Amino acid sequence: MDKYVSASVLSADMLDLGNEIKKLEKSGIDMLHFDVMDGIFVNNITFGLPVLQQVRKATDMFLDVHLMIADPIRYVKCFADFGADLISFHIESKSDTLETIRAIKDCGIKAALAVKPATPAEEIYKYLPYIDMVLIMTVEPGFGGQSFIPETLEKIRDVRNKISELGLDTDIEVDGGINSKTANSVIKAGANVLVSGSYLFSAEDMRIAANALREGTVC
Amino acid sequence: MDKYVSASVLSADMLDLGNEIKKLEKSGIDMLHFDVMDGIFVNNITFGLPVLQQVRKATDMFLDVHLMIADPIRYVKCFADFGADLISFHIESKSDTLETIRAIKDCGIKAALAVKPATPAEEIYKYLPYIDMVLIMTVEPGFGGQSFIPETLEKIRDVRNKISELGLDTDIEVDGGINSKTANSVIKAGANVLVSGSYLFSAEDMRIAANALREGTVC
Repeated sequence: MDKYVSASVLSADMLDLGNEIKKLEKSGIDMLHFDVMDGIFVNNITFGLPVLQQVRKATDMFLDVHLMIADPIRYVKCFADFGADLISFHIESKSDTLETIRAIKDCGIKAALAVKPATPAEEIYKYLPYIDMVLIMTVEPGFGGQSFIPETLEKIRDVRNKISELGLDTDIEVDGGINSKTANSVIKAGANVLVSGSYLFSAEDMRIAANALREGTVC
Repeated sequence: MDKYVSASVLSADMLDLGNEIKKLEKSGIDMLHFDVMDGIFVNNITFGLPVLQQVRKATDMFLDVHLMIADPIRYVKCFADFGADLISFHIESKSDTLETIRAIKDCGIKAALAVKPATPAEEIYKYLPYIDMVLIMTVEPGFGGQSFIPETLEKIRDVRNKISELGLDTDIEVDGGINSKTANSVIKAGANVLVSGSYLFSAEDMRIAANALREGTVC
């Protein structure tokens, strides 16, 4: 299965975002991961529509938007109109899951379902046929720079097994504490889209760092 | 009364924010106005803590943070810790007004109370002795680039009269549709802190544009 690295804008230099994006493009990064937090669904308020709109104008990169907001269905169309190529929303949010998936697909973009560390894998199984990706949070969502929770590996394996059992080829994205040391385990468990923030942006050579993630090799 | 121009970050180039701030500093702009929207209190999600934190590291400018969020008291300490010099919150929010003012003052920063266009001036009178500034919204909060609502002039006059009657020297900030054409009226009505977004950032010479606002002259 193809592996992708999605660079978390949360770890970028927000004072020089245009150049950060150019650097990501030049380093062959596959996607931009855009963490939207409303201060209600999680305990942080990050960035949203005006930032996404300007990022969209600056790049053709795939924009992977992760909505950590209380009622995501209300904002699906706005984020799609402002340039999202994929929208992830949480199964733990108050929006109806199937209706929100449908709203995202109606915008002609990809839909992903996100799960917090405490939510059992089984809860998402029935939605697998309708989504393009599962986003498994490997830290508690809210802040960048946290350490990977090893217990999430079993969830990744369970979801990958279920996807195979259903004959699907759904992507599994992991987000939180992903670096050259944890990449190997999550890939082995079945993840193929790796969100990387602190590790990628602090790397001396972003291209080498991204390759180390995709290959799951310790460097 | 001294007049100040507070540049709205919402109208800045978010891809080149560091240089935008340098330009504002060089143009003698007095403050940065930082509009935080959570998608619940208003129908937009803008930016929050990680952006403010990086802006704070880049400048010594006065950071005027306007919280358009459902329960502002929850985030007062975070925004103060991340660099706010003043926090405005809405009387229409669900946080207790006096407790929120106290929470802001406890952080050692200035407190302001914001009112939407539809809220009568009288509702804020009893809080005047406890706050440093009143923020009178001169458009419906949510988006930049809107036109000034002329009916808000009466509210500015009423609040200024009440402030004088109480023997206070509270600032009055206005936000929404402020440009060289509307500045004169709001200053005459009693406003002394002018938020400017589209007008300031699209000006050929930001210093001249800011002076035109402060002087309330049509240019």
